[in-house]
Amino acid sequence: MDFHGGNIYKIFRERKIKNILDYSSNINPFGIPENLKKLILENLETLEKYPDPDYFELRKKIAKKNGVHLENIILGNGATEIIFLITKVLNPKKVLIAAPTFGEYERAVKSLQDDIAIQYFKLEEKENFKFNQKKFEMEMEKNYDLVIICNPNNPTGKFLQRDEMEKILEKCNKKNTKLLVDEAFIEFVENWKEKTIAQTKIDKKNLFIIRAFTKFFAIPGLRLGYGIFFDKEDIFKVNAKKEPWSVNSLAEIAGTYVIDDLEYIKKTENWIQLEKKYMFEQLSKIKELEVFETEVNFILAKIKKGMNSKKLQEKMLEHGILIRDASNFIFLNKNFFRLAIKDRRNNDFVLEKLSLIFSFEKK
Amino acid sequence: MDFHGGNIYKIFRERKIKNILDYSSNINPFGIPENLKKLILENLETLEKYPDPDYFELRKKIAKKNGVHLENIILGNGATEIIFLITKVLNPKKVLIAAPTFGEYERAVKSLQDDIAIQYFKLEEKENFKFNQKKFEMEMEKNYDLVIICNPNNPTGKFLQRDEMEKILEKCNKKNTKLLVDEAFIEFVENWKEKTIAQTKIDKKNLFIIRAFTKFFAIPGLRLGYGIFFDKEDIFKVNAKKEPWSVNSLAEIAGTYVIDDLEYIKKTENWIQLEKKYMFEQLSKIKELEVFETEVNFILAKIKKGMNSKKLQEKMLEHGILIRDASNFIFLNKNFFRLAIKDRRNNDFVLEKLSLIFSFEKK
Repeated sequence: MDFHGGNIYKIFRERKIKNILDYSSNINPFGIPENLKKLILENLETLEKYPDPDYFELRKKIAKKNGVHLENIILGNGATEIIFLITKVLNPKKVLIAAPTFGEYERAVKSLQDDIAIQYFKLEEKENFKFNQKKFEMEMEKNYDLVIICNPNNPTGKFLQRDEMEKILEKCNKKNTKLLVDEAFIEFVENWKEKTIAQTKIDKKNLFIIRAFTKFFAIPGLRLGYGIFFDKEDIFKVNAKKEPWSVNSLAEIAGTYVIDDLEYIKKTENWIQLEKKYMFEQLSKIKELEVFETEVNFILAKIKKGMNSKKLQEKMLEHGILIRDASNFIFLNKNFFRLAIKDRRNNDFVLEKLSLIFSFEKK
Repeated sequence: MDFHGGNIYKIFRERKIKNILDYSSNINPFGIPENLKKLILENLETLEKYPDPDYFELRKKIAKKNGVHLENIILGNGATEIIFLITKVLNPKKVLIAAPTFGEYERAVKSLQDDIAIQYFKLEEKENFKFNQKKFEMEMEKNYDLVIICNPNNPTGKFLQRDEMEKILEKCNKKNTKLLVDEAFIEFVENWKEKTIAQTKIDKKNLFIIRAFTKFFAIPGLRLGYGIFFDKEDIFKVNAKKEPWSVNSLAEIAGTYVIDDLEYIKKTENWIQLEKKYMFEQLSKIKELEVFETEVNFILAKIKKGMNSKKLQEKMLEHGILIRDASNFIFLNKNFFRLAIKDRRNNDFVLEKLSLIFSFEKK
């Protein structure tokens, strides 16, 4: 499979190399929390048992953190399982997806049946990829079964504030349309706990929220995500259609630990607030680039002249850096690329190589 | 969820206990291979990366061991993901399941759409739960889209020899019916490599095989299974509908290692050949039980008098042992229970407590 930008393993195989600085996937550069490693070592024998099919301990903790009931929390083998599961349960015939965005929503919907109508709600580059409420109100007159919004959005880095998302939810409630909000990157947004739509006072029966442990806690290899669902009937259906034991035992242990690792959380929050500003400012200094301000740990840019993103990716690879060619996102073109935001030392190295490539190109 | 017999975690919570001798789930008593623990420790940092979406290394090894191509191997988050995935791809309208059997086939099929017709092909107790070919030939005249057979079968422990399974496959080919064979426990069968339907010379386009690493290598908490599929068009559809990264990085590392751990494999094969005979003989000595001979690492029994399996489970729990009340398997009744087969010391302990309970009951 090659649909997700940076398949480093394929590059390793094709180029017979063994290492790379991966700026194509958006993982917390602090890496796996140190105490979590110890915890995994101490609990290896737990692998000899099936996981708790109810994942009681972890769901209880997540529920408490989010101020909801245990029943509202559905665990998944990464956020992707939740995406596939909820689309399967809702079984929509007509779907609206705000785009450019993460490609798995489309894949999940298309995996259901061939005759599902997918419409894209275009986030306009000329509007800085912001969500146009007026246009959305009009589009909703077409009576969709399901609206999918990634918030913060991948790859644009834009975040819809709570009042904006509430308008969307109200419209969905009026039209009896389900609203799936993927908040996989929300923990990177400043003061996100007040900003998540999970905290809204509006009727949440049509609202389905997705979260991930993967990115913020740097454990994408362990696979852990969750859904926050509110409608009792839909939760019942989800449980009926869910694969058992989809979350592995170590992921459950990890989740139960990291959710309370306040030191790691604080350290990460401090880093991303500084570093996303720094990356935006520094990238903006490269004249050949148009850079889109971000709320999270990745940043979208467009090459104005000199080369396309495929060529840039090739040139960055010569320096041992993999960037995400973003040209295969719907509504983006061959000039877009996405960069992870990591620690200052690596960011500076990447910025230096980018500058070098573009200044060399000018000569 | 409580549909799988031994939910030890629920028992722990309800009875406020912390340990139990779990004879309700069928895991290799040698436990997680010792060298695998070391390997996991050495590779914890791999969790900071997404898994290889192609799972190239592991699929290559599995393909080689099975004498098939890389493309024929589909990895899954446990065998259960493969069950759900292949039923989703085949999208059958009329399904025949040989039963009593593992409950996830029915759940997977029912998770697709409400109007799917499931028929059970009854394995008769009076025929010792053996597969009746003549009756099957007749049943197949009803034109099924998909036939599902667990082989060796859970919970009966019976195994269809290759020539018998070939007859079934031939019938399926004639009727253009897909045949799903779940071989999750086949590695416990003596000389299984010659006996698997994967080795047949018959046309395999309608054949879908499921395997698990979970049981034989005692890593149910890690979640790893795979499918061996042969039809190119169906393989294409599977890849299109599959969730990405569903196998975690440590599971991939584990699979790549254990598949070559010949010492562990040999040790396990020697143990199970002896111990399944021993358990059958010893259980048969308890007059109140009817015991069904097994080819694998669990054994089915029926209580002829004195109590039902629920009561027996309760009494065994007083001795700290959890057995599988098998009464919720279709076609079984409240007198059936299933035991795992473990090491001699624990088996003797379980046998002793069983004898005690029944002899006490007689008084």
